[in-house]
Order: sequence, then structure tokens, then C-alpha cells
Amino acid sequence: MGSVPIFTTAQDAENAFYESLERNDLELMMAVWAEDEEIVCVHPAGARIAGQEQVRESWRRIFASGQRLRVKIAQQVTMSGMMVEVHSVHEVITVVGEEAARAPMVATNVYLRTAAGWRMVVHHASPAPGAPEAEDEPAEPPKLLH
Amino acid sequence: MGSVPIFTTAQDAENAFYESLERNDLELMMAVWAEDEEIVCVHPAGARIAGQEQVRESWRRIFASGQRLRVKIAQQVTMSGMMVEVHSVHEVITVVGEEAARAPMVATNVYLRTAAGWRMVVHHASPAPGAPEAEDEPAEPPKLLH
Repeated sequence: MGSVPIFTTAQDAENAFYESLERNDLELMMAVWAEDEEIVCVHPAGARIAGQEQVRESWRRIFASGQRLRVKIAQQVTMSGMMVEVHSVHEVITVVGEEAARAPMVATNVYLRTAAGWRMVVHHASPAPGAPEAEDEPAEPPKLLH
Repeated sequence: MGSVPIFTTAQDAENAFYESLERNDLELMMAVWAEDEEIVCVHPAGARIAGQEQVRESWRRIFASGQRLRVKIAQQVTMSGMMVEVHSVHEVITVVGEEAARAPMVATNVYLRTAAGWRMVVHHASPAPGAPEAEDEPAEPPKLLH
């Protein structure tokens, strides 16, 4: 691909994150993450993974499974400041070839405004049993972090 | 009790959070959280809880069980900015009366600097199977969020 995309909003970075998940696109995935050793990723039911190398390797393995996912994001709660945005979302994931959606995940995504645009610094996902099924609620304006 | 504590650092708020957990102290727990409807709490293996009322009720139920916990925090990764701090920690929880520590939890804690001091806005905890046992690593200086 060559050039790395610049995300001008945290939402753009989030959209690219889930797009990379649907496309099994490791380069796009890693373009979303900050170039930083302090990045933290927790996959559902998984241990914490920290740092560029480990985060890349974890996604490489996930994408190598070849499983095709469709991800619908619902019930986003956004807390936004000048330099940091925190999104709490429900991920409704469907595996292509399976009929039913799996149980929703709840994810905490933290984005940082860097010199290279908005980048992800934390992704923490865990199964959310009993979460209401994903009907998008009316969008609310983002909450400002003072 | 009466007066609400003012936390002058995010770490002070985090210390009070885990102290309230050990003391089953609902008032201290809620003094840690921002007075805000956008707060988000995910208990281990639980669904997302949002807003003051639901978050308070969830802790009230947990504390009402009467279970006494000891919590040791390890391997903290901190990302800190002017107004927001994000802490990723391993929680090693022991139930008083049980011999062994339970499997570690991984938690993402987000703090916001408000007019009333630093307050928690997100707590997302999930079981971290296979996480290394909690030996505190050498403390690293907090990473600045530009």
C-alpha cells in the first residue's frame, strides 16, 4: 500500500480499526495503533498484550485464521477531550458462514491525538453476556472532557 | 464521613478505588467516580453499566455480599495527559478466608481531571487467564500523552 493513512478524528481511526477487522488487513490495523511501546490490547477473554510487536503478532494470528467477520457497532458512549478520546462500544460480530450473531462484546477504545493524527492506544474487549441486542440508539453528541 | 475527598492525582483516585473495594465502602467508591451520566463500568464477565445510578447499584450489590477482598495491583501501564489518564493494571484479588489468589484480572481505568479533582470515568475489568503472576515490575515513569 505504501502511504499510511492520517486519521483526522478518533472516529475515523475507529472506523478503520473495525474495517481492518472485517478485511483481515494487518497493515491497516497497525496503521490505526500509535507507534508507541505503551499501547495495550486485551482480546476477549485474553491476557493483556502490550507494545507494538506483541500487538501486531496477536492480530497477525487472528487474521491468519482466515475467518471473515462482520462487525456492527452499537450503543457508543464517547468521552472526548482535546488530545484523548474514549469510546465505549458494543461490538456485534457475525462470522461469515454462521447464521447467528455471536454474543456482543463490550469494548473500551482509547484514542490519542498524535503528530501523525488520531491513533488507538488501548483496545480492551470482553464478552458482554446479557447485553441488549444491537439496535443502534439515537446518536448523542459526544461528551466533552472539559 | 460528610466531606467528599478531593483527589489531586489520578493515582490518588485509583488508590481510593481499590481501597473502597477492600473496605466495601460504597460512599468512597462513588466519591471516586465522576458525577456524570457518561461513566462506564464493566465488571469481570459482565455487561456494560453506564450512568451514576446503575454504577452505584452495581457496587452496592457487590459490597452487600459481605465478601472481603484484598487487591494487589501489578504491572501498571500509565498513559497520562493534562486532563485524562489511562491506567492498565493487573488486579490480583484474594478473598479473605480463601487460601489462593484468584486468576488475575486486567483492568482499564480512565481518569478525568474535573473541577472536583481527578475522578474515574471508565473501569473495564476482565479475567486475564495466563497473565503472569503478580510480581511488581520496576516502576516506569508515566508516559506523557503529548
